[in-house]
Amino acid sequence: MTGGVVFVTGAAGYVGSHCVLELLKSGYDVVGVDNCSNAVIDDETNGLVTNGNKQTGHPLPESLRRVEQIVGKKLKSFYKVDICDEKTIDGIFAANKFDAVIHFAALKAVGESCQIPLAYYRNNVGGTVTLLDIMKRNGVKKFIFSSSATVYGTAEYLPIDEKHPTGRNCTNPYGKTKYFIEEVLKDLSVSEKGWSIASLRYFNPVGAHESGEIGEDPQGVPNNLMPYLCQVAVQRRPYLNVFGNDFKTTDGTGVRDYIHIMDLARGHVVTLSKMLEQNWNGWHVFNLGAGRGYSVLDVIHAFEESTGARVPYKIVDRRLGDIDELWADVQKANDKLNWKAELTLKDMCAHSWKWQSKNPMGYQTCEVIPKKNGTSNGQSTNGINGNGIKTLNGNKN
Amino acid sequence: MTGGVVFVTGAAGYVGSHCVLELLKSGYDVVGVDNCSNAVIDDETNGLVTNGNKQTGHPLPESLRRVEQIVGKKLKSFYKVDICDEKTIDGIFAANKFDAVIHFAALKAVGESCQIPLAYYRNNVGGTVTLLDIMKRNGVKKFIFSSSATVYGTAEYLPIDEKHPTGRNCTNPYGKTKYFIEEVLKDLSVSEKGWSIASLRYFNPVGAHESGEIGEDPQGVPNNLMPYLCQVAVQRRPYLNVFGNDFKTTDGTGVRDYIHIMDLARGHVVTLSKMLEQNWNGWHVFNLGAGRGYSVLDVIHAFEESTGARVPYKIVDRRLGDIDELWADVQKANDKLNWKAELTLKDMCAHSWKWQSKNPMGYQTCEVIPKKNGTSNGQSTNGINGNGIKTLNGNKN
Repeated sequence: MTGGVVFVTGAAGYVGSHCVLELLKSGYDVVGVDNCSNAVIDDETNGLVTNGNKQTGHPLPESLRRVEQIVGKKLKSFYKVDICDEKTIDGIFAANKFDAVIHFAALKAVGESCQIPLAYYRNNVGGTVTLLDIMKRNGVKKFIFSSSATVYGTAEYLPIDEKHPTGRNCTNPYGKTKYFIEEVLKDLSVSEKGWSIASLRYFNPVGAHESGEIGEDPQGVPNNLMPYLCQVAVQRRPYLNVFGNDFKTTDGTGVRDYIHIMDLARGHVVTLSKMLEQNWNGWHVFNLGAGRGYSVLDVIHAFEESTGARVPYKIVDRRLGDIDELWADVQKANDKLNWKAELTLKDMCAHSWKWQSKNPMGYQTCEVIPKKNGTSNGQSTNGINGNGIKTLNGNKN
Repeated sequence: MTGGVVFVTGAAGYVGSHCVLELLKSGYDVVGVDNCSNAVIDDETNGLVTNGNKQTGHPLPESLRRVEQIVGKKLKSFYKVDICDEKTIDGIFAANKFDAVIHFAALKAVGESCQIPLAYYRNNVGGTVTLLDIMKRNGVKKFIFSSSATVYGTAEYLPIDEKHPTGRNCTNPYGKTKYFIEEVLKDLSVSEKGWSIASLRYFNPVGAHESGEIGEDPQGVPNNLMPYLCQVAVQRRPYLNVFGNDFKTTDGTGVRDYIHIMDLARGHVVTLSKMLEQNWNGWHVFNLGAGRGYSVLDVIHAFEESTGARVPYKIVDRRLGDIDELWADVQKANDKLNWKAELTLKDMCAHSWKWQSKNPMGYQTCEVIPKKNGTSNGQSTNGINGNGIKTLNGNKN
């Protein structure tokens, strides 16, 4: 089955926007919501967009505007609303008949979660419980949750499969919120018949849509390797910090399982289709990873090779809690969903770079790329026009 | 230090009301809130009680009305409000200067939590996070949390001390909410200086204030041994179900650590006093138990001996998930709080029975005690007047 109306939270975000693209491409209708706390909205009005006399939602965030352009199909509607705003979300459910919900909306910065844990518990756990309650009231019982390999804590064996214990040694509130929500979902699916719930445990999503029109657009200093690396390559930052080279791995740097964002997005659509087709019952969990690990240096080298960009880096101290290596056993997704990651590390690097070089300041319209002391490291502005000037709305494939 | 204004949530409940009694007796001022979902309110008005021109709160639930009578001191104010009602609670914080918060408000039925887990996660976890956020905004950072030995899951060793792992094998949503909240508290105390947080892990609270004026008043079928046993003795129910006699214990019935409710209440006041006196920092956890176990049959026999009442029982199948035995290591509370349980099993039984026999229908005004088929088991109506008639407001010590 391809078709049906899907309610997508956090639709404007990195994973959300790529998933919306895949959903639209696969014939689903999408009603998206996002509080746009990290989004760029190129709007002049703050109110609802009206279609004749009918309210159809808010202006699109830039990421979703581009998704519509790429696919040549429109979202059914989009609302700028927080998932904790129960009344508004309830209204959206009343006005639509949803076949399923895909839930991406969450705060997601590990470091920040240690500083403001209450906000993480409120938004992530509280927000999800509110959303589930709304679904229950409105008779929508198919739910796909954006979970994370972080629920596994420190790996007791590798590759890590879905039977690995969860919730032990989760070292930060962000990770705990993912674990807590999984427990809520499990309990909910047991408590009442008719729920189909899938928890998709992401490993390390990287890359961008091949067009380079949408991609990861972190606010402030990126927390993850690939966007940081891209910002170094594009000279927004002088060099990449490599946190430790004394891990027990081939080259001493940490090994992780990187998965291309479009493989990940496809994983959601495949899960949704199977869930609807086979009318799943209960709680189902799948690792979404490539099923193999790459070290930080592997990624840097692959990036340099596939893009021609140079990435200066410095080895610095390990971060507290970082583990040697982690990668997924993806057999279950392969068997049950007939899904596996298809895009390569080279693709991840090339597409990340395409996105970053076409959009050095992400979705922000930006006249001038600030020159940091990165230039003192001698790298060139590979891949972007030489004058450091870039306008977002003007870029073309 | 004895003194200070304490905000108590779930003030009208079993543990809450006994704790409010101890707080008042020890010189603290109390502002209580309760959503009264389980409480009896003997009021004619639904609005705020006014004291001259000043709003002072809502009419007292019966349990707290009696607390005031027993102690001869009034609460500062009481509000019938749910802790999830952020705006109202915020207003109460704005109108008062609290030295600390003791948080009892929670849904607490294990079985029900399996049926409606979302309500448990919303009220217990969501409610607590909301409350903590309100405290944070209002600069109140001393917090005592009503936790439970259930966070330990299946005991890996006995007696169980505070270092025992938590959150593993929590078999029901109720227990998980307690565990999740403890994790929130831990993360919060690490994230920001100035928080003093105590998590008090109750074992099995039983008994009542020695006056028999206040006690445990479960709605519907009691989930716990002692109230069920009392309702059998008072002939509200025909017999007691003893769930399994093939546990690995002396007499085959499950062994638990029962703690007298007044010892438990005192434990809160002692914790509060130390917290304020010593200006604790961070997160502190204490077991509150008697430090020894009794079997179900031990309790039945002690009850019959100390009260003269007869308790017919039947051995029935074990309940899923029930463990052989569990009791607390209470050394830490003894060392750090100079607290230990002082009242005996005999006291627990005698006071429970005094409460139950004076108030066979709990706090409800009830003309006639319904006669169940219990009489066919031949037990007498020990301890209550022979005609089965009892009026709540007329009873005296």
